[in-house]
Amino acid sequence: MPVSPSREQSERRDTRGRLVDAAASLFSRHGYAATGVKAVLTAAGAPYGSLYHFFPEGKQQLGVAVLERGGDFYRAMVESFYPPGVDVRDATAASFAGAAELLVATDYADACPIATIALEVASSDEPMREAAASAFGSWLDVLEERFTTAGMEPERARDVAVELFCLIEGAFLLARTTRSVAAVHVAGRAATAAVAAGLADGGGAR
Amino acid sequence: MPVSPSREQSERRDTRGRLVDAAASLFSRHGYAATGVKAVLTAAGAPYGSLYHFFPEGKQQLGVAVLERGGDFYRAMVESFYPPGVDVRDATAASFAGAAELLVATDYADACPIATIALEVASSDEPMREAAASAFGSWLDVLEERFTTAGMEPERARDVAVELFCLIEGAFLLARTTRSVAAVHVAGRAATAAVAAGLADGGGAR
Repeated sequence: MPVSPSREQSERRDTRGRLVDAAASLFSRHGYAATGVKAVLTAAGAPYGSLYHFFPEGKQQLGVAVLERGGDFYRAMVESFYPPGVDVRDATAASFAGAAELLVATDYADACPIATIALEVASSDEPMREAAASAFGSWLDVLEERFTTAGMEPERARDVAVELFCLIEGAFLLARTTRSVAAVHVAGRAATAAVAAGLADGGGAR
Repeated sequence: MPVSPSREQSERRDTRGRLVDAAASLFSRHGYAATGVKAVLTAAGAPYGSLYHFFPEGKQQLGVAVLERGGDFYRAMVESFYPPGVDVRDATAASFAGAAELLVATDYADACPIATIALEVASSDEPMREAAASAFGSWLDVLEERFTTAGMEPERARDVAVELFCLIEGAFLLARTTRSVAAVHVAGRAATAAVAAGLADGGGAR
């Protein structure tokens, strides 16, 4: 039984990972439909046959992998923004401020890795819609758990999580479209106030 | 000087209008890149040459027309949701409830006519990005004016307008992806509370 992956296994995983990374970047910036398989292969520096080797069902299967990767990546980011013991009001303010910085640093290209694709496929591709829903749900679960641990009533914690999701996603849309982070700062203040109010009502505010 | 458009003029306008209507429906449900010019012509029942007759610059020009039409349509809808003299808190609650009903009635297809396209083109098509930004700005202007008239401080009125925009757009994204209007109801309660708080701070609440 090998204790570490063989070099061949590593290379296989690397090629698959490069394909997913390249597709994620292209899909989130230009959309799923607008991105051809050839552009993904070129960006990944991968040979033509590799796409159907790793994704025998084709572009849709790659799309699902991109949504799963984006979901996992952002869930880990949400977890890191709310480490155990942090004041969830401070963490909320900091996460919106961080999102605004990232938008500016990437010339308004890097925002939500799921939203652009999700809106494109919501009415037309059921496996991809379900993958996007699962990603969003995992982020809401993390927020709900953090808010409940901080003292919010569970039902209120879910509502506040949903409210934060709506505020940041709507702010990403307005910020990318207007090339201004003003909306992210407005949304961040509203989100922080929502968290504070949820804690105060649940007796968790100190 | 004619007092009414000639039949030929009406038919010309009808064909252009049918092209924009068909494109708007297809773009918002499947995305801009995923929709071919042929599909638009078929859905509009228009002859092949008509697209380049009315939109000599091609698909991008049609895209800008779709964003302008969607922007005008939604601005009129926002105005109708907030008629003169209405309690803006009640109007806010009613508009979110109406959005939830429309989502269910259209099987989660009809939401924002701009958002899907805006996210697709924000980093890649400057004329379309600007058309989307102009549409969003016109909605925010209506809300800001209504809130100021109702007694909010102007700066606060703009922030509350932006907050409502973020909440409804984020809720549309989550609702279409999860096929549930739960997020729209959460967002509606948050929006109504934001309007009430803005009025209370401005001395406009009664």
